[in-house]
Amino acid sequence: MQDASLTQPRIGVRPSGPRDAISDVPGVTVGHYTLADGALQTGVTVVRPHAGDPYRDKVPAAATILNGFGKTTGLVQVAELGVLETDIALTNTFGVGTVANAQIRHAVAANPEIGRGLPTVNPLVFECNDGYLNDIQALAVTEAHYRQALAAASAEFAQGAVGAGRGMSSFSMKGGIGSASRVAEVHPGQRYTVGALVLSNYGRLPNLTVAGRPFGRLLAERMDRQTAAPAAMPEPEKGSIILLIATDAPLDARQLRRLSLRAGAGLARTGSVFGHGSGDIALAFGTAYTVPHLAERGMPTVPMLHETRIDPLFEAAAEASEQAIVAALWHAESVTGRDGHTRRAIREVAPEWRRWLADTQL
Amino acid sequence: MQDASLTQPRIGVRPSGPRDAISDVPGVTVGHYTLADGALQTGVTVVRPHAGDPYRDKVPAAATILNGFGKTTGLVQVAELGVLETDIALTNTFGVGTVANAQIRHAVAANPEIGRGLPTVNPLVFECNDGYLNDIQALAVTEAHYRQALAAASAEFAQGAVGAGRGMSSFSMKGGIGSASRVAEVHPGQRYTVGALVLSNYGRLPNLTVAGRPFGRLLAERMDRQTAAPAAMPEPEKGSIILLIATDAPLDARQLRRLSLRAGAGLARTGSVFGHGSGDIALAFGTAYTVPHLAERGMPTVPMLHETRIDPLFEAAAEASEQAIVAALWHAESVTGRDGHTRRAIREVAPEWRRWLADTQL
Amino acid sequence: MQDASLTQPRIGVRPSGPRDAISDVPGVTVGHYTLADGALQTGVTVVRPHAGDPYRDKVPAAATILNGFGKTTGLVQVAELGVLETDIALTNTFGVGTVANAQIRHAVAANPEIGRGLPTVNPLVFECNDGYLNDIQALAVTEAHYRQALAAASAEFAQGAVGAGRGMSSFSMKGGIGSASRVAEVHPGQRYTVGALVLSNYGRLPNLTVAGRPFGRLLAERMDRQTAAPAAMPEPEKGSIILLIATDAPLDARQLRRLSLRAGAGLARTGSVFGHGSGDIALAFGTAYTVPHLAERGMPTVPMLHETRIDPLFEAAAEASEQAIVAALWHAESVTGRDGHTRRAIREVAPEWRRWLADTQL
Amino acid sequence: MQDASLTQPRIGVRPSGPRDAISDVPGVTVGHYTLADGALQTGVTVVRPHAGDPYRDKVPAAATILNGFGKTTGLVQVAELGVLETDIALTNTFGVGTVANAQIRHAVAANPEIGRGLPTVNPLVFECNDGYLNDIQALAVTEAHYRQALAAASAEFAQGAVGAGRGMSSFSMKGGIGSASRVAEVHPGQRYTVGALVLSNYGRLPNLTVAGRPFGRLLAERMDRQTAAPAAMPEPEKGSIILLIATDAPLDARQLRRLSLRAGAGLARTGSVFGHGSGDIALAFGTAYTVPHLAERGMPTVPMLHETRIDPLFEAAAEASEQAIVAALWHAESVTGRDGHTRRAIREVAPEWRRWLADTQL
Repeated sequence: MQDASLTQPRIGVRPSGPRDAISDVPGVTVGHYTLADGALQTGVTVVRPHAGDPYRDKVPAAATILNGFGKTTGLVQVAELGVLETDIALTNTFGVGTVANAQIRHAVAANPEIGRGLPTVNPLVFECNDGYLNDIQALAVTEAHYRQALAAASAEFAQGAVGAGRGMSSFSMKGGIGSASRVAEVHPGQRYTVGALVLSNYGRLPNLTVAGRPFGRLLAERMDRQTAAPAAMPEPEKGSIILLIATDAPLDARQLRRLSLRAGAGLARTGSVFGHGSGDIALAFGTAYTVPHLAERGMPTVPMLHETRIDPLFEAAAEASEQAIVAALWHAESVTGRDGHTRRAIREVAPEWRRWLADTQL
Repeated sequence: MQDASLTQPRIGVRPSGPRDAISDVPGVTVGHYTLADGALQTGVTVVRPHAGDPYRDKVPAAATILNGFGKTTGLVQVAELGVLETDIALTNTFGVGTVANAQIRHAVAANPEIGRGLPTVNPLVFECNDGYLNDIQALAVTEAHYRQALAAASAEFAQGAVGAGRGMSSFSMKGGIGSASRVAEVHPGQRYTVGALVLSNYGRLPNLTVAGRPFGRLLAERMDRQTAAPAAMPEPEKGSIILLIATDAPLDARQLRRLSLRAGAGLARTGSVFGHGSGDIALAFGTAYTVPHLAERGMPTVPMLHETRIDPLFEAAAEASEQAIVAALWHAESVTGRDGHTRRAIREVAPEWRRWLADTQL
Repeated sequence: MQDASLTQPRIGVRPSGPRDAISDVPGVTVGHYTLADGALQTGVTVVRPHAGDPYRDKVPAAATILNGFGKTTGLVQVAELGVLETDIALTNTFGVGTVANAQIRHAVAANPEIGRGLPTVNPLVFECNDGYLNDIQALAVTEAHYRQALAAASAEFAQGAVGAGRGMSSFSMKGGIGSASRVAEVHPGQRYTVGALVLSNYGRLPNLTVAGRPFGRLLAERMDRQTAAPAAMPEPEKGSIILLIATDAPLDARQLRRLSLRAGAGLARTGSVFGHGSGDIALAFGTAYTVPHLAERGMPTVPMLHETRIDPLFEAAAEASEQAIVAALWHAESVTGRDGHTRRAIREVAPEWRRWLADTQL
Repeated sequence: MQDASLTQPRIGVRPSGPRDAISDVPGVTVGHYTLADGALQTGVTVVRPHAGDPYRDKVPAAATILNGFGKTTGLVQVAELGVLETDIALTNTFGVGTVANAQIRHAVAANPEIGRGLPTVNPLVFECNDGYLNDIQALAVTEAHYRQALAAASAEFAQGAVGAGRGMSSFSMKGGIGSASRVAEVHPGQRYTVGALVLSNYGRLPNLTVAGRPFGRLLAERMDRQTAAPAAMPEPEKGSIILLIATDAPLDARQLRRLSLRAGAGLARTGSVFGHGSGDIALAFGTAYTVPHLAERGMPTVPMLHETRIDPLFEAAAEASEQAIVAALWHAESVTGRDGHTRRAIREVAPEWRRWLADTQL
């Protein structure tokens, strides 16, 4: 049982926003739909860049493919045009098509001229494979699930085994949704927030590193052999991680691509080498301005951040990503799903986690 | 009415294979499902690289995004791993999710361990927006349509307003599916076939160029104003073209990426500048060897083609692509769909096409 | 002998600027240094985006590698940061290192803190292989040649066998420097200029296409066999072409990358398939604003062009590129260089060129 | 003074090759030329993939640009063709042009038909900015220096403040050349070596992390303020790191690109976020086969490694890179150069390094 006085291990040196979550970036909200029913342990998570219509007011965005063993949809157009046209959806690998359909219908409902007078809309759905806990072959995610996740979006949201994270595994333990934020001072008095939200479903236990400590190696030796990793991950890594980065700094798509790559630095520090079988994809979006769908409405005139001031944002993106990965483990609860498969929460596997870390400060 | 003695304008100087179609590459087959019912004018086309299981025996492949205003799914993994895992599907923009679901279910049926002991499968679905003729908002494409197109795959297949091409428009006339092939001699006595299949849904009439002649400009002046372009394409180009290239030359994924780009040369010669609103994507795959899903089966030892001998393949890819675009126009029949919208076949609009071209040889 | 009344074949439908040259984009100038001395037939060409210091006031830019068989230097940083830091230099393949050194010394002279308090500077040198006419192994280009080309920069400049174009071959004839411009109306009353300058050193004669006519095929049959191509190009294409695009439209680096690709459409129409051995690289830069080296000076607030209005620029880039390639042939004079090798000017090879074209209008 | 009994902190869990250096990959050798003369503190390092002619027998290779604030030359062609044509050179930022010239002359001397009957050769020169210690504006590197470094290539080579590493700084201390290797078992009994060599010139002291410990933060508090970092790095990071990876595993260019990216995981773990002003570039090459320049000699028939067995190589690349970075610090000696600037060796700054690390094992 968990000691309530324990708090999550802290990554890095920068301050967090008030929630230590991606919703510290003003306007960003997150919603979940969780399906937890026997062999079905899956769901949908939606990240909304702003409260308006994402098709009419597009936020700038760009992605980095750290390892492309993934089935996400929508990135071809993001790379070309540098904007999003829908909210961002996360789900399981086999739910992508259905959630994309839901995004299309939602956009058409709000903009009935889509695909007629207006161009079509670009669904954006990320995924990880939750097949260990979830009966992924059931294709259980429905369009209604997407709509419910969207409707639930709020600046306050749960983390751990919820939404798209319900069935995810990480380091042979329970993974899922984690989030964090960091505040970066790019110039004296000029501060921006960088938020991260991850769908964490990757990692081999022996490689797990927390704040630089080889936690996984030690844990692997101590874990209950019946319930934990050895048997669960005998083959090359087949997981994935999606890393979403939000910021209110005025960056253009080229700069956001740079920012998205830095999520990979945070990921690497947790013990990842962007393994072959892992779809490791980072996407960064900005909220400082929007690009109107219609030319008549005029383009933004916000000056972008000067490149020489971008390093604090890079460091914040790496820290927030690493923290979000830890948060996904920290908040997870144990889940039993398909064929009796179980992933135990790290808080149960290693309740002394925080104490160990405290003891090993340099 | 068409003069039966007319034959398609001929592009370039290289010989074609016996069918002048992508199926001249041994093993490649094509199947269609056509939905033609009032406001529903759409469908699915499947290109099969070989008759076996595409997941167990993966063909090498690579793509070039000429213009990324498109909603294709599957290219992230193709870029990373350089192989296909499914047959190649073409459909309308809003059918992508459903066809991807169909591909997943088909792969799982053939390989029940997918998403369990085996990794998931990467659906590969290309699309164009047929919303002018088709009620695309109806999301009328079903998983059964994909299965029927797949079952229909054959080396002999129809072109024009069929399958995914049913509702497509090109140069303000009827577009759709076109195919061609060219035989390239890379070294004395050493010949390979390069085949192309396009889903053609792009082009502004005044830009149409056939074998170098400014056909579109002349045609635009002569066309029946009631039925043709002016009103139909007042805004920036919102079409797309998918160009699939097949070859039996032994190329690796890096070389196939190079080959795929050359489809763009053929496209440019028809009058395209890869317009902003057009999702112009080329994918090339090879049939000279396959990569087994399981390491135990051993990797191929086929020597690749020496790079200095690749130019004839490049030229063949450009010629076959250009010819396939012409073929899509040539084979099309007139179609009336949503809201009474009509796209007339070029054979009706300009029955004298071939004669003009003949008269204007340099 | 050339008929003085003949004028260059005209590509496309858009109007040109007053000079039909890249310098129609306000502020852009071009300078040459030509080395024509026996076996040494080479030189340097400099394109200046503006008259100021390119390090302190950086213009936005981006490139497309159509075929990367090339030895250009500087594009890694352009891709990352989206700006130029020097003027743009063109020279022969083995002159890149020396010209880069000259650019460094020039930048340091103007900004003595470079490499000390300030970061280093990114040289940008493009090249083609003029080894057929020029004794390229002599590494005859000097830093002084760069400085002289730079000093000579003017809105009025020569084309043909001058500067970096001195020793270049194209379609087995004399190639070199060509330039053109087109005016694009992106919205009623809103016009921008797109200029192109090419260093043209590519092309197999049978493939040469001018305004859609298979000029090269016919010419190949008629050319004087002693002086022309057959012996000169028995192997795969080993040339290159550099395509520079300038515009005064307010585009960011992402949009300029899109624009640069469209130079490839113009190139394809001349008969190129971006051959294996040809370094085909396009770079586009914008003059609507500059990015200051120092953050203290403030970032620009110019609104970018709305993406839906970019197509006329795309078409202008393709037309201007195709025209510039024709211009390089048109303006060339015959040159004899290394080992008595000669490339004849097209005006000598085919004085009837223009008349033929006139006769073959559709 | 250093305690001779101390040994370099050890990264990761995999065994090293006998030298713990890139030359553990059979055939790979390294040579330096060091220029250490007052204000001139710079040099050239050459990495040779094999003892033969690199133009005639090309090794497969590919690169990842982690952050493109760099002036390397040669990567455009590597990306297109997937092979090297010269040995790999490292030098200071302003030495690139001269070293490229030296590579050209060396290749021409060995292959007199280059640039005549044969295509030109692609120089490959990486760089970092050593301007803090070295008078980089002097452009002091000569072609002779390259030839001497090349002639000195050996499986046994020095590390630290030698060759191109002479003037480099890292974490406000002395950086330079470091190397390491790891042995990866990809299948029971099937082992390959992955070697790394870095030119290390990046890093802000407070971020330095060694084997997960926040060494830099602690060190920053204890360092002698007169000689160390605070004043030395007040601005955004302006360094760079080049990471070269060699392996005898049979990988093609696509796989080598994947491998090169994993060097970035090792880099991230040392405290880097691929800072804005840092040119962070990784290149991986393979020695399992070569591609002949001439088609007549026949292409290799070596089967590539199955992708599902690549993870141990990825982990080895990350470990070897991280170790090589530590090695560069470990082997460095203090250097005083331009304007009396000094970078102290970590062994002088923190002789207790190893002991600290030993004390802080989890």
